[in-house]
Amino acid sequence: MTERLVVIGGDAAGMSAASQARRLRGPDDLEILAFERGTTTSYSACGIPYWVAGLVEERDDLVARSPEEFRQRQDIDVRTGHEVTAIDTDARCVRVRDLGTGTEADHGYDEVLIATGAEPLRPPVSGIDAEGVFGVQNLDDGERILDAVAARDPQTAVVIGAGYIGIEMAEAMLLRGLQVHVVELAEAPMVRMGPELGGRIAEEMRELGIHVHLGVPVEAVNRGADGWVSSVVFGGRELACDLVVLGAGTRPASGLAREAGIPVGPSGGIVTDRRQRTPVDGVWAAGDCAETFHRVSRQPVSIALGTIANKQGRVAGLNLGGAYGTFPGVLGTAITRICELEIALTGLDEDEARHAGFSPVTATVDSTTRAHYFPGAEPITITMVAERGTGRLLGARILGREGAGKRIDVLAMAVWNEMTVDELSQVDLSYAPPFSPVWDPVLRAARASASAVGAAG
Amino acid sequence: MTERLVVIGGDAAGMSAASQARRLRGPDDLEILAFERGTTTSYSACGIPYWVAGLVEERDDLVARSPEEFRQRQDIDVRTGHEVTAIDTDARCVRVRDLGTGTEADHGYDEVLIATGAEPLRPPVSGIDAEGVFGVQNLDDGERILDAVAARDPQTAVVIGAGYIGIEMAEAMLLRGLQVHVVELAEAPMVRMGPELGGRIAEEMRELGIHVHLGVPVEAVNRGADGWVSSVVFGGRELACDLVVLGAGTRPASGLAREAGIPVGPSGGIVTDRRQRTPVDGVWAAGDCAETFHRVSRQPVSIALGTIANKQGRVAGLNLGGAYGTFPGVLGTAITRICELEIALTGLDEDEARHAGFSPVTATVDSTTRAHYFPGAEPITITMVAERGTGRLLGARILGREGAGKRIDVLAMAVWNEMTVDELSQVDLSYAPPFSPVWDPVLRAARASASAVGAAG
Repeated sequence: MTERLVVIGGDAAGMSAASQARRLRGPDDLEILAFERGTTTSYSACGIPYWVAGLVEERDDLVARSPEEFRQRQDIDVRTGHEVTAIDTDARCVRVRDLGTGTEADHGYDEVLIATGAEPLRPPVSGIDAEGVFGVQNLDDGERILDAVAARDPQTAVVIGAGYIGIEMAEAMLLRGLQVHVVELAEAPMVRMGPELGGRIAEEMRELGIHVHLGVPVEAVNRGADGWVSSVVFGGRELACDLVVLGAGTRPASGLAREAGIPVGPSGGIVTDRRQRTPVDGVWAAGDCAETFHRVSRQPVSIALGTIANKQGRVAGLNLGGAYGTFPGVLGTAITRICELEIALTGLDEDEARHAGFSPVTATVDSTTRAHYFPGAEPITITMVAERGTGRLLGARILGREGAGKRIDVLAMAVWNEMTVDELSQVDLSYAPPFSPVWDPVLRAARASASAVGAAG
Repeated sequence: MTERLVVIGGDAAGMSAASQARRLRGPDDLEILAFERGTTTSYSACGIPYWVAGLVEERDDLVARSPEEFRQRQDIDVRTGHEVTAIDTDARCVRVRDLGTGTEADHGYDEVLIATGAEPLRPPVSGIDAEGVFGVQNLDDGERILDAVAARDPQTAVVIGAGYIGIEMAEAMLLRGLQVHVVELAEAPMVRMGPELGGRIAEEMRELGIHVHLGVPVEAVNRGADGWVSSVVFGGRELACDLVVLGAGTRPASGLAREAGIPVGPSGGIVTDRRQRTPVDGVWAAGDCAETFHRVSRQPVSIALGTIANKQGRVAGLNLGGAYGTFPGVLGTAITRICELEIALTGLDEDEARHAGFSPVTATVDSTTRAHYFPGAEPITITMVAERGTGRLLGARILGREGAGKRIDVLAMAVWNEMTVDELSQVDLSYAPPFSPVWDPVLRAARASASAVGAAG
């Protein structure tokens, strides 16, 4: 008998799962029905700021596979413009609204995968839902921002929050020729980079011509007569603007699950086991809406990232397809840039380490991406957090220019494998003058960290 | 009572050791006497091709610390232009020739560190010692090549061997405006990259205008009336040329040790334990002249690389300074480039794996360095060798353009930690469109390798 898999959400996690399940089970064995609220499937949400910036030309460049392709190549019944409004886990059915016609219908399932993604954090202030205030979650959001830029010729943009999306959208607005203000509640952008590196990011943003306002909450958003945003109030001042972008991060879009009685954890994400099963029979979750396990803190966390969504989706798909897969957890590795300044991190920062029960020791080194004498050698700063006593590497941060950021992957590998900084300092990494100093910055930082652990231990 | 450490060889290994020992023991406790045959200490031998190419301007750019600096800052008695000609391990003394005056003298030691480096392989053919045939081992070699280029206005260079130094020197000669011929005994350049990737390197070299002659031995080097090289004979033809560079690799300069009865291993390097002690009391060895342990094959190997020399020198220095350090072995990680083509490898290739007793399975993927739609996305090819059955990663090769090569370090970390390709495919590596596709090429290659291991296992 044919079973039916219903997938809620047509981006990375949902469609990775659908696709993987289909590779393992044919259409006679498994019917796959995927509902997507928006108009597109399997798009790169992380690419949206660069499309808005004009660095990526076409919306379609960001689409890995269209609904049509899923239908034709994989026999996956994708329905865009359809929103799942309720899940009945006893009756095993979902209620779906056709956003075009407004009609609703119930669809039964044998298994359902919740992959509803994340939603932008909105400061709880008046006017935050005004027209002209944009999240950056899906391609339709990007389209709306580009339409506004084209139609209204905005002069000034306010970006609320200086997290990843905040700084990427600040760059995008800058490249579009707008005056850009970034308003951040914390004392520095990219809070997880720490105050010292965060301060250098703020400095770089200011040198690029971005107005950076730190340590100030947004107090209100005002609208003009046409209902469109007209100004933002923060730190006791009112700044006239034509466009507002929400860049203060996201939270798991777990409301649908919560209303259906599916457990949601303290991080706001849906609870799953390592096979991506929720505690409710027949219900699975993957991607930004789900919790995941942090391998260093051993705590459940919610991290909205395409990599995690893709991997969790694949694991869910393996299991839904009758194979076996587990998701091993995350390190919170991330990378971004503000124009030419590369920003990357993995594992825990000092505060997070302390909070997780470690006694952390921090060390920082400045080096260059190539041999110091080689043309194109760029600065790189690496901060490492290691455990006092054992010397285990708990986390690292990188700030630098071209060739700096991606070195975080070497550190992610060290954190993943629970290596000590002493051992890391001895690893046989590659060297040639166009690629690194003879002691790669990673090795130098590990040596400095090993000394710090020893000295402090 | 003051002890005396004699260091033989003033480059990476020798001076790292001297410097580290000095940090731990003051001049009243340990006298350090270092003999260097050439004129410089602590130079970047790996930087010589780029200096010859004109990419690095000054000879001094390649010198990390001069003899004068060692004398003044660290009270290390460095004597350049002095060659150690014999070691008497019973009497604990070395015989030293002053290359300036030709006089010889004996110097006693309590501990001696042999750090004599490597010497270029010279095909055993007539004329190979002609003037105009250059090795690329030290700064004086580089100086001589540059002098020849300036004084003789050479039109054609022949590079014998297409290993690292061979292809780097081919680039250098090309940038100096010469016609360049590379003659390689094997069927492809960079033998350890395998025939498929090696073929692509040859293709790239030819596109750059380098004449590449593969599968042909050099048969003779001829001299002109002035004793300077005039032509090279290979594959039955005679090619007129003005300059010859030895680029066929190196062997440990272990002759001095061998003559002193210090054990030399099958790889040609001096035998040491993990603290860099030789089996002979009071005698230590580090760097290119010493053997090292390959962590995957578990065999002693000799690999001439500045990274290993620096690390071994530091370990020797820790122990000579009364502290404790061990060298954990190598993976054979290496990186180079021919103009814009980046070439990198770590661990074992398929043949080496088989030779070491593994049953290897190879998988290759092509990807891009950034999201495929992002400006500046460059091609990257990764080949992985994993063990059948366990899926343990044994080695990897990378070929690609900007941003490709340094990803080898992630793979070196995986090999170092004896990870399986399946686990590697799940590691939380960084992602943002300017830095990688959502599945980093490393993760994609690991997935392909995991499938191959499964399918073949």
